[in-house]
Parts: sequence; C-alpha cells; structure tokens
Amino acid sequence: MSFGIETKGVYPIAATPFRPDMSVDWDSLDRLTDFYQDAGATGITILGILGEAGKLEPEESREIAARVIARARVPVVVGVSNPSFAAMGRLAREVMDLGAAGVMIAGHAGLRSDEQIAAHFRNAVDAIGQDTPWALQDYPLTLSVVLSVPMIGRIMADHPSCVMLKAEDWPQLEKLSAIRAAQASGGMRAFSILTANGGMFLDFEPERGSDGAMTGYAFPDALVEMDRLHREGQRDAAHDLFDAHLPLIRMEQQQGVGLAVSKYLLMRRGAIARDIKRRPGPALTPRGREEIDYLLARLARKDPRAAI
Amino acid sequence: MSFGIETKGVYPIAATPFRPDMSVDWDSLDRLTDFYQDAGATGITILGILGEAGKLEPEESREIAARVIARARVPVVVGVSNPSFAAMGRLAREVMDLGAAGVMIAGHAGLRSDEQIAAHFRNAVDAIGQDTPWALQDYPLTLSVVLSVPMIGRIMADHPSCVMLKAEDWPQLEKLSAIRAAQASGGMRAFSILTANGGMFLDFEPERGSDGAMTGYAFPDALVEMDRLHREGQRDAAHDLFDAHLPLIRMEQQQGVGLAVSKYLLMRRGAIARDIKRRPGPALTPRGREEIDYLLARLARKDPRAAI
Amino acid sequence: MSFGIETKGVYPIAATPFRPDMSVDWDSLDRLTDFYQDAGATGITILGILGEAGKLEPEESREIAARVIARARVPVVVGVSNPSFAAMGRLAREVMDLGAAGVMIAGHAGLRSDEQIAAHFRNAVDAIGQDTPWALQDYPLTLSVVLSVPMIGRIMADHPSCVMLKAEDWPQLEKLSAIRAAQASGGMRAFSILTANGGMFLDFEPERGSDGAMTGYAFPDALVEMDRLHREGQRDAAHDLFDAHLPLIRMEQQQGVGLAVSKYLLMRRGAIARDIKRRPGPALTPRGREEIDYLLARLARKDPRAAI
Amino acid sequence: MSFGIETKGVYPIAATPFRPDMSVDWDSLDRLTDFYQDAGATGITILGILGEAGKLEPEESREIAARVIARARVPVVVGVSNPSFAAMGRLAREVMDLGAAGVMIAGHAGLRSDEQIAAHFRNAVDAIGQDTPWALQDYPLTLSVVLSVPMIGRIMADHPSCVMLKAEDWPQLEKLSAIRAAQASGGMRAFSILTANGGMFLDFEPERGSDGAMTGYAFPDALVEMDRLHREGQRDAAHDLFDAHLPLIRMEQQQGVGLAVSKYLLMRRGAIARDIKRRPGPALTPRGREEIDYLLARLARKDPRAAI
Repeated sequence: MSFGIETKGVYPIAATPFRPDMSVDWDSLDRLTDFYQDAGATGITILGILGEAGKLEPEESREIAARVIARARVPVVVGVSNPSFAAMGRLAREVMDLGAAGVMIAGHAGLRSDEQIAAHFRNAVDAIGQDTPWALQDYPLTLSVVLSVPMIGRIMADHPSCVMLKAEDWPQLEKLSAIRAAQASGGMRAFSILTANGGMFLDFEPERGSDGAMTGYAFPDALVEMDRLHREGQRDAAHDLFDAHLPLIRMEQQQGVGLAVSKYLLMRRGAIARDIKRRPGPALTPRGREEIDYLLARLARKDPRAAI
Repeated sequence: MSFGIETKGVYPIAATPFRPDMSVDWDSLDRLTDFYQDAGATGITILGILGEAGKLEPEESREIAARVIARARVPVVVGVSNPSFAAMGRLAREVMDLGAAGVMIAGHAGLRSDEQIAAHFRNAVDAIGQDTPWALQDYPLTLSVVLSVPMIGRIMADHPSCVMLKAEDWPQLEKLSAIRAAQASGGMRAFSILTANGGMFLDFEPERGSDGAMTGYAFPDALVEMDRLHREGQRDAAHDLFDAHLPLIRMEQQQGVGLAVSKYLLMRRGAIARDIKRRPGPALTPRGREEIDYLLARLARKDPRAAI
Repeated sequence: MSFGIETKGVYPIAATPFRPDMSVDWDSLDRLTDFYQDAGATGITILGILGEAGKLEPEESREIAARVIARARVPVVVGVSNPSFAAMGRLAREVMDLGAAGVMIAGHAGLRSDEQIAAHFRNAVDAIGQDTPWALQDYPLTLSVVLSVPMIGRIMADHPSCVMLKAEDWPQLEKLSAIRAAQASGGMRAFSILTANGGMFLDFEPERGSDGAMTGYAFPDALVEMDRLHREGQRDAAHDLFDAHLPLIRMEQQQGVGLAVSKYLLMRRGAIARDIKRRPGPALTPRGREEIDYLLARLARKDPRAAI
Repeated sequence: MSFGIETKGVYPIAATPFRPDMSVDWDSLDRLTDFYQDAGATGITILGILGEAGKLEPEESREIAARVIARARVPVVVGVSNPSFAAMGRLAREVMDLGAAGVMIAGHAGLRSDEQIAAHFRNAVDAIGQDTPWALQDYPLTLSVVLSVPMIGRIMADHPSCVMLKAEDWPQLEKLSAIRAAQASGGMRAFSILTANGGMFLDFEPERGSDGAMTGYAFPDALVEMDRLHREGQRDAAHDLFDAHLPLIRMEQQQGVGLAVSKYLLMRRGAIARDIKRRPGPALTPRGREEIDYLLARLARKDPRAAI
C-alpha cells in the first residue's frame, strides 16, 4: 500500500453521496469507491471539505470510513480535522483500527503565528498518536492559515509521522520549487507532495516537483492520464489534455458552488445516483447545469470520457 | 420558569469541570449547578464558549445537559452552535426532550453579509425546530460576525421563537439604546436582553435597557446583587460594587487565558474541585495565580464574598 | 463619452509602468494608453489594484491621471479608494477637474455588516461629491467585503451617481442573474455591469447579463473580440477564443504574482518597456517566465496576437 | 534625549485636535504638547491610531510632526505605518530631518505567516533607513497581525535599529515574562518595552518586566504617578491609583468609540478645545458624555486630577 514519503500518483478527494432524505447513500458510496479505483487512483481520500465532513455526525463519519476502507483495494486516507482534539483523536484511532492508511489534518483560521501553528500540530499529533501516518493540508484560501516554506519544514522536522503535503496554496508554483530546493540541499527532510486546488495548476506542478494530485475533480481518470504524461515527459500532450479540461476544472474550483458542480459531474458520469448536498451551500440552478452540460459537450470533442 | 421575552435577571454561563484524566467531573458539575442556584441565578446557560463546548464529544454534551437539567430548579439554556446544522438540530431536540428551557445559537466567521446571516439563522431554526425558544448570541469579538441593529430586528421578525438577545458587542452601550428605542417606536418586537462580554460594562448596561446579565464571571452572587441595586435605582451603590470587582472582571475577560482565570476563581470559591481545562488554550502560571490571589485579597476588603 | 448606466464594452484596468529607479515610466504610460485604445477599449480604468494604486504617492496618482486623461480619446475612470475619505475626496475632485469620466470605489475588510457598508459608501459619496459618477467595486476575494444582491440594490438606491457595478465576486454567475432579474422585475434600478475577476468567467458572464468587462488581462484586444462575439450570439466562437486564452488568464489571476504575470505579458507585447513592480509583492522568476513564454507559444497557435 | 533600548517612563500617544471645519487645530496641538510634557511624560508619540493618522493627508502629517517636534522638549516618536513603503519612507525621512527621536511601525492584517512578517519589516527598515531608531508595535486586536515571542526576537535580531517594543497584545502578561526570560538567558537582545492596550493591565505589567507605558489614556499624569509608584515598589498604592482609574480606562479602550471618549476627556481636562474627530468613527452621544462625566465625578473623589 502506498501512503508514505515516496507516494506518487493520484488520490481523488471523495464526495459523500446523499439520498433525498439527506441520509448517506451507501450504494452510491460503493459505486464511487469503484469509480475512483477503476480510474486508476493510487489511493482515495475521504472526509475532506469536498466530502462535506463538517456536516456529518461522528457515527456517520465512522461508517463512511468503514465502508470505503472495506471495499477499496487501494490505501484510504481519512480527513480528521475537528475543532476538538478529542474528537480528532477518536476518529483517527477508529479509522486506523479499521485499516485506514493514514489521516489528513489541516489548521484553522484562528492560527495566526508560526508558534500557534506549531502548537496546533503538536496537539493534533498527540491526539492521533505518534505512529499514525498523516498528510498536512496547506490550503490557505479556505482555511485561512498560511504555512510558509520554513514553517512546513518545521512541522515536518517536528513530526516524523507526517509523510505527505497536500499542497494547495495559491499561488504555489514557486513554493513547490522552494520546498524541493530545500530538500535537495539537505535543509528539509523528504516527503511526498500531492497538489490540489482543484487541479488548477496541474499542468506545471509536476515539473515544479509535485508527486501527483490529491484533488476532487470529477475526472480522476483524466488526472491519472495527465500524471502519466508528465512522468513520461510528454509536456505538450499533458498540456493539451489539461487545457481541454481547464474550463470545467475552473467551474469546479469555485467557492461554495464548486461542490455542486463536482457532484453534478459525478452524477452525470454515473459515479453517484444524485447530486444532493447537505446544507448550507448553494445548489446548481437549471441554468448552471446547462452551462456545465455545454462545457461537457465541448470537452467531449477532445476527450471521449466526457461523452455521456 | 423564566426563559422568554420578559426574562430578567442573571443567567450565569457555566464552566465544565474536568478531572485530571480530562473526563467530565460530575461531582463538581453538581456542585457548580448548586453554586449558581444558591447565588440567586434566574437560570443557567451551559455548553457555551466558557463551557468549552467545542472540545466536548456529542455524548458528553448530552450527558452534561441531562445532569444539569435534572438537578437545577431554574431554567437551563443550552448552547447548541455547531458547524453542522444536523448536529445542532440533534443536540437541540435531545436537550429540549430532557427539559431544557431553550437553546442558544451564534453565527460564525464565515458570515459576511446580512443575507448570509439571515440564511444561517433560517437554517438553524429549521434544524432546532420552529417551536424551540432560543437566545441569539451577538459576540463579534470572538465569533467575528457583526449583527447591526437592523439585522437583529430582521432576525427577530423572521423568528418568533427567538426570545432573547445575549448582547456582547464591543462597544454596545449605544447599541442597547438603539434597540430599545426601535422597540419603543414599534419598529422592533419585544425580546429580553441579557448582556455579557464578561460583565465589563455591567455598571451602565441596565440603564441602557438590558434586563440582566448572561455571563461567566465567577461571582454570580455579586452580579445578582448588582442587578438588584440597578433595579432599585441605587446607581452609586451599584457602581461601588462593580468598581470593586472590575479588576477581576477584566482578568477574566482576557482572550484565551480568561477561561483559566474563571476556572481558578471557581475553584478558589469551592464551586469546582479543580481548574483543569481541555486543550488547546493557555493555563495560569504560578505567577498568574499569584496575581489573581492578590486581586482577590484586595477585593475581600470591599466584598466579603472574596474572603476565601 | 460612455461611462453611465448604459455603458457596454471593455474597460481595461491599466497597469502602472515603472523605471528601474522605481519612478513612473511616463513614456510607457503613454504607450500603454495607446495600446488599450488601439485594442478597441471602450474606456480605461486607472489606479486600481493592478495599477498598484496603494503604492503611489498622492502626487504620483494625480500626475498619472492627468497624463492618461490628456492622452486618451476614450473615457477614463480613476480608482480613488483610500482609508482616508479626505484623501479619497481630494483625488476624486482633482481627477474630475482634469476630465475623468468618473471614479471607482471599493469597500474594505473592516466592513462587517450591511449597515457599516451603507455608511462607508455614504461617506465616500459625500467625499467625492454627489454629482461624480462612480463604479462600485464588488471584489470580496481581495477586499474581504461581501456585497449581497440586496445590499447592491440598497447602494444603488441610495446613490443615483453610481452608474456601474464592477462585478468580481466568486462565484458570481448566479449573482449576475439575480441582479438582472431584480432589475427586470422593477425591484432594482438600472446600471451597467462590467465583470472582472481577471476574466475567469467571461465565457458565460455576458449570457448572465453583464455588459462587458473591466479587467486587467494583458490581451484587451482578445477581450474586445470575445465581447463582440457574445453580442453577435456566436456562443461557440466566443468559447473557442476564451478557452484558448484561459491558461494565461488563470496565470494572471493568481494572488500576488498575477500582477507580475500581467506586467510581463504587457512587456512581451510591447505595451510597456519593463515589467518592474513596486514592493511588496513577488516577482516572476526565470522559471516562471519560461512557463508564461510556453503558454504564449501555445496560444499563438490559435491566436496570432500571441505570436510575439 | 531618551528613545533607545534603555528608555523607561511614559510616552503618551497624542491625539490630533481638529477645528469644526475639520482642519487641524494648531493652537490645541500646542496646548496638548504642553499638557503631555507638564504631565511628566518621558516622550510623546504622534500620528498613531489614536492620532487618526490614517485620516490625515501627507502634508498634514508632516506639519503636525514639525509643530510638535519644534515645541516639545522631550523626544517625539512618529507613527509612519502606511500601505505604501514609499510613503512610509518619505515621512520617516522628513520627520527625522525635523528632529524626531524615532518612528513607530506596525504590521497589517495581510501578514499571515512569520515569513511574511519578517519580509514586511525588512521592507519597512529599507524604506525608513537602516539608521532610523524605531519602535515595533505589537497590537493584534486592531492590526490583526500576531507576533509570537520568537518572532519578536527574530525582528529584533534582524534589525538593530529597533529599540523598543510597544506591547499591546491581549493577553500579554505571560508574554512580557517570556520576553524578559529570553533576554535574561541571552536568547534575545535587550530593548525597551512600553505597554499600551489603553493601560488596561498597567497594574501588573511593570512587575512582569515593562519599562513604562506608551498609551493614550487622557490622564498621562496618573500614568506617570503609577509608573513612579511601581518603580518605588509601592505595589498597593499603585493598584489603588490604577483601580480608581480603571472604570475610565476601560471606557477609553473600547473599539471605535474609545477615541471619542479620549478626546472628550482631553477636552474636559482643557488639553484641547474640542473633541471633534474626523470620519469615519462613532461620536459620543449626550448619554455617553453623561456616563463619562459621572465616572469623572466618581474618580474625583479619589484623584483630585479628575475634579474639573
């Protein structure tokens, strides 16, 4: 199983499908698990922001993790961020017992200095256990916590159990280069970097040093292909594929409504039965769906995966 | 039982006592419930920020509510704010079934326009049920959500089940006057206003229109006396008592460490066995305790309640 | 001259070119003014965020405005946002005397309720004068002030001198539809809407009701053509052109470094002599320039304007 | 002249008096300068937040500085914080040429990591000149920038020209102790610490290691006496005096309206002719003035300076 400092590839961020009565749609969750695996995913990340983790009850989170872990043949990483370290620790221990490969932890808007950030991750590692492998999420646009390159190095030095950076700063191309340069010079230890930000800069990130992607774009199969093209050094072909998808990637990366776009695309692709979301958060209007359908049709002219 | 638009008096915000192993200290919780009642409290508010609600597991919150409601002879209001409306609704229904008088709801930092605020409280009222009486918490310093006077009027008009404003804007003396003026002119419906902000402006708030206090200062008996002096029109005596307590009130109202001060004072007064807090958050150093002890000794020269 | 509630077309947001000694490069400013006009711009907006307005001395702002207004044959709108209303008013009066068509005003992060926002724009209109036409900037991602649709309606109702909305919320497609629906139903008065956000959603915005674009993308000629294609109902052609530019548009829209990308592109296109920026803010590294050059070369295969 | 790493005493933060036409009231400015000196101030700090620096035109700032520096017999420190480093540098050079003892610089809300903070002060020191002595303002409540103890140490290590910390974090008693401990152990170089936060914790700060106060409370003469009592080890007497003033100190420390309270008190004390403020910001209502008058009358029973 691959969740460690050497991990390369694509870890889709999984959605959480719901039924009309707002309960979890377990059949769709199974189908979605298969969808990610069939797309060639290296692993699956569940209970992230896209997975509407903040809107789930503790027992729902546990059951979702149990279901996906039991079904998946690839490593499963579980988002455990929580205002309560006790709750974070409990979920982490439960999912590790269930067979998760590791967990994912983010900061929050209240962290306003490097000292506060360092204390937060010390508390988090105490809560999840020193031996639990974890990914550090660097997503300032939504989380409002800024991790400088030296701060990332400090967290990595403090916590050998952190094996991966989920990189989604904005901008971050130079940041990736700076991290890799620090590692090359011996100033920072090794770890895997998977990039996110909805995939908005996936055309250049591998050249800057990323090891792959950990993001929720509804075409994980296209992400896997982009990743392969990059590994093979086919720069132009990777850009051609990326450029074809960029209009949709951008729609999905919008704040708030992006989640609705993502679930709508997953539904159109047959990966989940419905695009229902829990509140709060905007839904797609008929007009908004028509725009996505139009972009899908345009994409289908270049990528047959979109012909649905 | 008094939790309605006519409510007057003092609703202490209750702390949550812990044992050295960080479990809830049920004996201290009983003692604390009695302490508030013996102090003359009109009601008790549990699971607020001071009650470390964000660090509790859902079942702990439920058990704490059950325990306090069962023991108290005065109305108990339960803080139910939660990033998940599902979780908010569940806790609200559970505590109302247990006999709570009502719940308390706040906004959060993500609410940046009056439309977003209105939507948040619509979702919240849907979640807790249209018939559940609730208090609206207006605490921008910590919650980062700003409720203007017209916005408060709008929430009150939208939701007849909101019976009380927990007023802790900063500054807020003119705001209290503006709300009462709007009500007097018929532009806003009636509701109770209890003030908080640690009690920092309790010397003037009743004259500005407040109906009492809902705050966590460790001398609820002194708050009850201040309230009585105000009702009796004894302005100078009310100020004398307030001024004697202000040095301690200010220590308790500090961000972060204020909670440690509050629990230390409750321990010194015998209301709880230990001043243990859950992480994160700073603790009192020996030096910090010495300062509180010194202020207590100074206060004891003017108020015998502090002679401990 | 077109700066009013009927305005349609493209208003580029102008950069401010500097010399190596960090003084304003007046020759480049002239060349840039011509560049925008030759691109078919309806008007020019100067001293916005892209124009590094916050890094200019008051007399520099005045001189830049004087120079551009004197040279341009199209209307010039001047950003006058300033923490000081006195300074805002002074610059507004000066540029209107020089012949500006109007000014542009934004809110700021300190505005946390609709009442505060309304007061801010009242103070601003008092400062610039009731008769000065102005554009309202709605840019929450950078300015951290959220204008709901009803709030925009309120500002427009309060201030007849506001003739335009510079729309750059994120997301905003539904918001555009909501504004136009409110106007169609008589619930909101008429005004022009030019969209920005770097042009990231220009492929759909005109269909949602925008009248054109007010943004800084370094291909204003392409923006003018997209605008024309939309007006002519050539949806597919407009999308084809947009999609070709989207990879570059996205690079320019990055926080911070986007300004460096924009100036580099303007330099590559010959519109300014150097891509020098004032501090603070990141510059493009050689690697970053290579990436832009690569995207330019890719674009040139579809749009000859990029063959440089 | 005393503005260096050994500085002790009281540096009042000066208000800026205005005439009814909103121009600077030069006579009152002279009177205020004398008032601070006659109060026993060690120095005077002008053009801070209390001095409404953000609402002044550049030439007004310059003239105010020139006037106060020419009249004062004590060192004058000038706030030069500005979104534009060019403007910051120009004002700094001008006031140093006029004879200022040094300048004061703060961060801003955009600084979200230690790296960003370090870069900000590097740019600032480049702008004001390496040889200009300056005070570092640590005021997170208003400025939204958090300086941890290690970060303060880093700024001090990077910039030998920084001679003073204007300490107004909240809470900060433990922070003062931590800084002094770091200095005692050789981990941080020496510098002066004057505390602010409106004086809300002046009863304990000297024991924690502060060298005095730099704050705007309208009784600088009382601050000077408190400082003296602390130096003489008269703990109880210092607290007695502090406690008498605390009700007013608290009124002045309110966000927004605190400035109105401060100017009203300065007017009542005869230090300025009128309590006029520039917009934006709330004014004192008649009711608010009555409350201040009442607190003044109460204070006068304990401190004859308040008998006015």
